[in-house]
Amino acid sequence: MNTHDTSRSAPPATFSSPESHDDQSFDQESFLGQAHAILGKKGLIIDDEAIDPWLTDWRGRYTGRALALAQPADTAELSRLVALCASNGVPVVPQGGNSGMVGGATPDASGHSLLLSTRRMTALHVDADTMTARCGAGVILQTLHEAAAARQLRFPLSLGGKGSATIGGLVSTNAGGTQVLRHGVMRAQILGLEIVLPDGRVLDLSAPLKKDNRGFDLKQLWIGSEGTLGVVSTAVLQLCPAVAERRVVWAGVGDLDAARRLLLHNQHALDDVLEGFEVLPQACLDHVVDFLPDAQRPLEQPHAWHVLLECVADASGAAALGERVEEAMMTAFEDGLVEDAVIAANETQAEAFWQLRESISPAEKARGPAVQHDISVPVAAMPAFLQAVTDQIEKNYAGHEVLGFGHLGDGNIHLHVIAPPGAEAIEWEQRSGKAISAEVYEMVTQWSGSISAEHGIGQDKREMLYATRDPVALDVMKAVKHALDPKELMNPGKLL
Amino acid sequence: MNTHDTSRSAPPATFSSPESHDDQSFDQESFLGQAHAILGKKGLIIDDEAIDPWLTDWRGRYTGRALALAQPADTAELSRLVALCASNGVPVVPQGGNSGMVGGATPDASGHSLLLSTRRMTALHVDADTMTARCGAGVILQTLHEAAAARQLRFPLSLGGKGSATIGGLVSTNAGGTQVLRHGVMRAQILGLEIVLPDGRVLDLSAPLKKDNRGFDLKQLWIGSEGTLGVVSTAVLQLCPAVAERRVVWAGVGDLDAARRLLLHNQHALDDVLEGFEVLPQACLDHVVDFLPDAQRPLEQPHAWHVLLECVADASGAAALGERVEEAMMTAFEDGLVEDAVIAANETQAEAFWQLRESISPAEKARGPAVQHDISVPVAAMPAFLQAVTDQIEKNYAGHEVLGFGHLGDGNIHLHVIAPPGAEAIEWEQRSGKAISAEVYEMVTQWSGSISAEHGIGQDKREMLYATRDPVALDVMKAVKHALDPKELMNPGKLL
Repeated sequence: MNTHDTSRSAPPATFSSPESHDDQSFDQESFLGQAHAILGKKGLIIDDEAIDPWLTDWRGRYTGRALALAQPADTAELSRLVALCASNGVPVVPQGGNSGMVGGATPDASGHSLLLSTRRMTALHVDADTMTARCGAGVILQTLHEAAAARQLRFPLSLGGKGSATIGGLVSTNAGGTQVLRHGVMRAQILGLEIVLPDGRVLDLSAPLKKDNRGFDLKQLWIGSEGTLGVVSTAVLQLCPAVAERRVVWAGVGDLDAARRLLLHNQHALDDVLEGFEVLPQACLDHVVDFLPDAQRPLEQPHAWHVLLECVADASGAAALGERVEEAMMTAFEDGLVEDAVIAANETQAEAFWQLRESISPAEKARGPAVQHDISVPVAAMPAFLQAVTDQIEKNYAGHEVLGFGHLGDGNIHLHVIAPPGAEAIEWEQRSGKAISAEVYEMVTQWSGSISAEHGIGQDKREMLYATRDPVALDVMKAVKHALDPKELMNPGKLL
Repeated sequence: MNTHDTSRSAPPATFSSPESHDDQSFDQESFLGQAHAILGKKGLIIDDEAIDPWLTDWRGRYTGRALALAQPADTAELSRLVALCASNGVPVVPQGGNSGMVGGATPDASGHSLLLSTRRMTALHVDADTMTARCGAGVILQTLHEAAAARQLRFPLSLGGKGSATIGGLVSTNAGGTQVLRHGVMRAQILGLEIVLPDGRVLDLSAPLKKDNRGFDLKQLWIGSEGTLGVVSTAVLQLCPAVAERRVVWAGVGDLDAARRLLLHNQHALDDVLEGFEVLPQACLDHVVDFLPDAQRPLEQPHAWHVLLECVADASGAAALGERVEEAMMTAFEDGLVEDAVIAANETQAEAFWQLRESISPAEKARGPAVQHDISVPVAAMPAFLQAVTDQIEKNYAGHEVLGFGHLGDGNIHLHVIAPPGAEAIEWEQRSGKAISAEVYEMVTQWSGSISAEHGIGQDKREMLYATRDPVALDVMKAVKHALDPKELMNPGKLL
């Protein structure tokens, strides 16, 4: 049964809640007075100038207005505040580090919403004995990394925004990053959650039970729901032993399918230590080398595709790591999977390899306007998909360059389509960029893929979600949303 | 906020659906005629004698009646059948291998329900390239094991009923087993699901996307929901490389906390190869040795607690395994974590160690009547919890023996309370057994644990679920159930 054939709908208006305080009876002064009584002076900011920085997302693409900025200190305050909003019909927009990619933490322009920051909820307890961390929603990712490292442990999820991203935001967006291949996305690190429901009640699912078959695993609903079902107040996370040794390898391969076969080879040979597997085409590497003043090419000859792979071991596996990686790469070479490869001789070289990878985005940005797509398809289909999408876009849009790179091991690539040289950014984006994106997302959907592998939907991709997603799945999402937030007060206009 | 203080409710009547076909307008003959038109002769069994074996659970504890037995051959038939049931208000009771522990697949006594067996949905495709298996709901676990082994792969979840348990049932009950420590429960193996919703529509979430952040991860809802939200029709599962080498160790320790510290030690030292960590007290071992005619004690001296641990490696780690396990056990001995230990010298001895573990239940059964509890608490709390529950039960119920054993690594033990010698089974269970179970479950709840770690709720623990679970969590479960199955036709009287 192909449900994709049924008709698709446009999303409802951004701010449509019939029960919100859009009516005459709402007494703003009284509401703020009650909020102040719950939160105190530090917890409720009404001064426009102080709120202003939090009303625009970090990339400057979305701006909104808010009644006030609430900053509860703990779950008890948060619970009372959300209950107050529910009884007054005040929409709530949760915000963590304000470092999301899709405008998910920016309120709409109505000014009716309360902006709710978790930044003061920073309780953090690392238990070395059980290798777990109990984190308030406002704990910053880097703070957790440091707290874990101080106990010879680590939290195996990292991303560019680690200096500002909060645990609550990472849970609510089901964040990814560069260690997903081995450790999984945020969902896989979560042992327990405490949630404040849209009516203000606390749903405590924070006991770290490895097995619990008392029906639906409720906490899963709040992971990746972007604040639309309530507010994550506390997370209990799994830690793992600290890294004792790593090996970083740069390999050249003949095509993307060879890269995929190298991945499979290493998943067999290095199953328990293979942590990252990134790919980029030769053109990406050329752009990076042009962009970075002192960049060295890891390999002498050009190759159609390049692979950056990282293996890490904790203390127990450190001694064997080097030999295992060498042997795996040797057999890959003998099997004809790689054309050439080099293992970083030291940490400096390893860092240099990673710098090439991390410079792809700024290097592309320097080349002119582009549209970017954070997409996934089943890993096995990625080589054929990338060929098909490149052929179609380059045929339909002459002079454009299509570049795919990123997390092949996760079936997740960043697909950039770069405007012809000399194109004027705003005009090009309106004339071609939007149409190109629509075509890319339509192809991703045909290939059973996702239009948002890592970044979420937020405001940014809401229309595209409605345009591409199976209507049955959308119906189920709406039914769940309506069941848990019937007044539609939680982060309205995001996701659904 | 301690939500556990609010009042708890009794469960609603077993068969309460106001919209089911309990009224006069239901035309049974017409319904069965339409079902026959969808399913054909092999797909619809009306003969009472042929249905009879499937109306009682395998332990003989629950018996029901049904309108007929439906056996759709594929998703298309299943979808049309469920839609027909929805439009006629006919309750549906899904059944896989009929090997569950809590009566979750047995219809009620009304005879109004359609018993829906997935046994004919046996499509199975193993893809060695991506290490995945796409399984129809009716594929039997052992069949999947064999199909994976034929490709030098394995599906790392196994349990006693593997010869009858189906993939659909394992998904719907979120099954556990003996490999959870390393590989996780069924939920962790699932890459994609296809589901037939209560209205008959197909929700296709079967594309194996490693990253997909388009909102709620819907498939999570059907894992462990015991058929109360619809019928799982297909699952796409992750496989892993076949086992090339294993080491099985028997160790004696001074107390359960030492066992827990040994677990932690080995999670550091043998992180990637430690697959099982089972514990049993000396009394359990004594009972097993009395029960098994040729049993050998692995260690000469008695110890307060015994640990059975297993490490396995695939081809890439096989050579190093033996030395790693020896070294880890040596340092554990030096650190005073174990009193004595022996590594099985060969496969025969390894099997003999496991046979001791697997004979605990039959050995206990031979000693007389007992009540059994499949419970979990946070791993770190297990030693203190077990001491507390043993003290309380042995104090309140003189002459009873409390034995806890099982999956310490998962925080999941099987807690058996054995009647005094000579007790008469039925009379004892009525007089003391039920009261003991209520007391155990109340303590588990106080310790933030689960009254059902592995087996689910079904009919068996429904009353206890309502008596012990946080009312906020129950409310959220009921809201989700009502949103997705508003007519309450899916497996009524189970779980909720």
